[in-house]
Amino acid sequence: MSLTIKLHLITSHSHHLNLNFHTLNHHPTKFTSFNPNIRSKSIYHSDPLVSIVYNTKPRMHSPSRSVQAPIKSSLIDPDGGRLVDLVIPESERASRVLEAQALPKVSLSKIDFEWVHVISEGWASPLKGFMREDEYLQSLHFNSLRMKDGSVVNMSLPIVLAIDDETKERIGSSTNVGLVGPNGDLIAILRSIEIYKHNKEERIARTWGTTAPGLPYVEEVITSAGNWLIGGDLEVLEPIKYNDGLDNYRLSPQQLRKEFDSRQADAVFAFQLRNPVHNGHALLMNDTRRRLLEMGYKNPILLLHPLGGFTKADDVPLDVRMEQHSKVLEDGILDPETTIVAIFPSPMHYAGPTEVQWHAKARINAGANFYIVGRDPAGMGHPTENRDLYDPDHGKKVLSMAPGLEKLNILPFRVAAYDTVHKKMAFFDPSRAKEFLFISGTKMRNFAKTGENPPDGFMCPGGWKVLVNYYESLQTEEGSQQAAVLSA
Amino acid sequence: MSLTIKLHLITSHSHHLNLNFHTLNHHPTKFTSFNPNIRSKSIYHSDPLVSIVYNTKPRMHSPSRSVQAPIKSSLIDPDGGRLVDLVIPESERASRVLEAQALPKVSLSKIDFEWVHVISEGWASPLKGFMREDEYLQSLHFNSLRMKDGSVVNMSLPIVLAIDDETKERIGSSTNVGLVGPNGDLIAILRSIEIYKHNKEERIARTWGTTAPGLPYVEEVITSAGNWLIGGDLEVLEPIKYNDGLDNYRLSPQQLRKEFDSRQADAVFAFQLRNPVHNGHALLMNDTRRRLLEMGYKNPILLLHPLGGFTKADDVPLDVRMEQHSKVLEDGILDPETTIVAIFPSPMHYAGPTEVQWHAKARINAGANFYIVGRDPAGMGHPTENRDLYDPDHGKKVLSMAPGLEKLNILPFRVAAYDTVHKKMAFFDPSRAKEFLFISGTKMRNFAKTGENPPDGFMCPGGWKVLVNYYESLQTEEGSQQAAVLSA
Repeated sequence: MSLTIKLHLITSHSHHLNLNFHTLNHHPTKFTSFNPNIRSKSIYHSDPLVSIVYNTKPRMHSPSRSVQAPIKSSLIDPDGGRLVDLVIPESERASRVLEAQALPKVSLSKIDFEWVHVISEGWASPLKGFMREDEYLQSLHFNSLRMKDGSVVNMSLPIVLAIDDETKERIGSSTNVGLVGPNGDLIAILRSIEIYKHNKEERIARTWGTTAPGLPYVEEVITSAGNWLIGGDLEVLEPIKYNDGLDNYRLSPQQLRKEFDSRQADAVFAFQLRNPVHNGHALLMNDTRRRLLEMGYKNPILLLHPLGGFTKADDVPLDVRMEQHSKVLEDGILDPETTIVAIFPSPMHYAGPTEVQWHAKARINAGANFYIVGRDPAGMGHPTENRDLYDPDHGKKVLSMAPGLEKLNILPFRVAAYDTVHKKMAFFDPSRAKEFLFISGTKMRNFAKTGENPPDGFMCPGGWKVLVNYYESLQTEEGSQQAAVLSA
Repeated sequence: MSLTIKLHLITSHSHHLNLNFHTLNHHPTKFTSFNPNIRSKSIYHSDPLVSIVYNTKPRMHSPSRSVQAPIKSSLIDPDGGRLVDLVIPESERASRVLEAQALPKVSLSKIDFEWVHVISEGWASPLKGFMREDEYLQSLHFNSLRMKDGSVVNMSLPIVLAIDDETKERIGSSTNVGLVGPNGDLIAILRSIEIYKHNKEERIARTWGTTAPGLPYVEEVITSAGNWLIGGDLEVLEPIKYNDGLDNYRLSPQQLRKEFDSRQADAVFAFQLRNPVHNGHALLMNDTRRRLLEMGYKNPILLLHPLGGFTKADDVPLDVRMEQHSKVLEDGILDPETTIVAIFPSPMHYAGPTEVQWHAKARINAGANFYIVGRDPAGMGHPTENRDLYDPDHGKKVLSMAPGLEKLNILPFRVAAYDTVHKKMAFFDPSRAKEFLFISGTKMRNFAKTGENPPDGFMCPGGWKVLVNYYESLQTEEGSQQAAVLSA
């Protein structure tokens, strides 16, 4: 079956590239034909199936950053009433760089750098920097911050920067510090700093509800971190870039809001994910749109918003996921007319009910007023026991009661599973339970690893091929590493 | 120095016993003389020094319980606007007892029983029973509950009832259960029950900020508890009694409010404690009163409110503490005219910043609008590491930011220490730090254990003698136990 789809793609310039091209559904071996008038290139590896293209002009700082035009749309208000933007205007950059060079320096890990990105663009509005102790304590104990006017905003994860004794000593009595990125570049100033104790055990226990060894974020970030936290007001010297070919998908909340406005969205529903999209997800997203139309909304827009920061080793990497998502749009499983795909730059905590609040709250700041929540959001297996770390229902329950999220409409997932009679993903019908097949993430990965095909209709063939290729490349890599070890 | 003090004592009938009697300060060997017209008896052991007396008429359910007259005073509103009272009116008692007898039964531990007491009298208002899952999750994640009208009340400790698999099985599909006290008496009905999973690890981690072994409440209550929690609406068949000679000090929030009203208190400041009162505490309480008068209050009343439920093994037991407190009033260290001593029936969690919120919130329900908070409230040493479990400053910081406690005035402790020059407890003056001696609870206990006297002016002699006697009795007990072991 051949069909024509019109793909809207958002670049950092907030231009639309209206690409008309053809694709052959269920025939993943056929190539996509591009509109030759658009200057474009593949963004993923060397896979010839790539369908989403982007403007190759290097991303400049968006004019909207310095203009600071107030958001004039009818979109949901950002937390605190005003979207935080901590990138220094270009006119002041040179003097701030000079100032920063003279300050004591704090080195950032890759994940610290991701948090600088997150804070600087206002995902954590009204947070204006790494947390000081009063913010940290409120986050840890109440999952929320009380503002001066008495209003409450959600803030469930401690967004903190750890330093060691030696760095603390070096900072001395300085009130400001310079932040140095993982590549050695000076990237930000932290002002009016406050240094306070980093009680790792308490932070871990209150954030994850366990202190068992093996939590990915803890092992990666906290265990080796210093015994102090440093908070303060952040000023970023220029917009954060990763130069990994995906920067144009990293739309800031301000850019997303502009885009929703220009599309005249009257509802924005966000779908957070860190996994490949299968047809059950798609069913859910399409069904959500249908329900929103039924509710009277005229133009609901889907924000398909894969998480782009740190993920655990056995998750599918960002570039592969982006490629997989592009196939889902290319194959017409999701409608590009009413979908925006962008990267959410936060690192992943795998902190279940605590983290899902952060995922939802950040999307308010990006303009979403509906949030889809599934089973066991941000969950994982218990690191030392043979069970889920969190009760799979707690995420949506906690989210629906969370302080500061009252204005967000929570849309609980309906469970989708593979309907073996109709040979497609469908909402689970308990009256004929035996006809449904549940395909977990683990099962899906095992299919892809072994090259076995999942049941027909589980995922669009283009998207599936991306996964199979990824796992094949892993095995080749492992194979050559083993060969290298043997020959050494 | 001989002085006359007028001691106001509140009984469960909310009568004043205006006792005029003489006591000899600094002469602890002299006996107190009682007004012979008042029928009274010693409430503690056989110590002849006892000074606080009470009406021996057995406590009946207070008429105010069934009348449910609205609190008409200008006292701070209870949380949720109305004080919860879950004791069944006497007229309905017989029929409810019959009903309860036919229900599946749940057995209560001594500490469960203390919680029934706490809930039934409205200390946890607006909570109307053991928490259902939505309340439990809000407590665990947000330390607060959102009410239907959108307002928020503080609720930092999960107040829950655990049952085991066998009990769950036995309850089956019943919607109500009967609660059986530790003595085998049927004491309450729990209605419209909800049974949900008891994830002990998560509960412990989020409540204490650690999962280290050795937390007293965890060892006593949680470790051996069942894997299910049962929530529902509580109905208590009659007012909770302990029959330990101290019931008349167990004034309900309603009784305390009545008393504050009848004394025409325009400010009530609560002092939570689980330790003997030394002169540093007294200085603080008296200084608070002075400050409230300076602020323009005409009649500030102190609620000296020792915790009466479960405490850890090395804390001084309730009866000894009550006796010690009575000495402090008898010796004129605190003014009985403006002080009410009553027992707060809650068990102790030793959960630091999480628990101090509960301690403060419960006192709002009892009518207190000022709460004194000290260093490391509800804290203890880390069970496995050589440090305080909590940052000693976090308690007051968390308390001052806690959701639902905005209407309560938090009065942070000024640090008192022994002034070696003026030979008394005084507020610490950093400019002459060397002249101050800090006497920790541990040091104090060691003084009392070894029979060594603390510095003059540390504690009133009458109060000190109570402690010395207690530790002497412990050693005698230990001695005879050791002798018994040797002779066995």
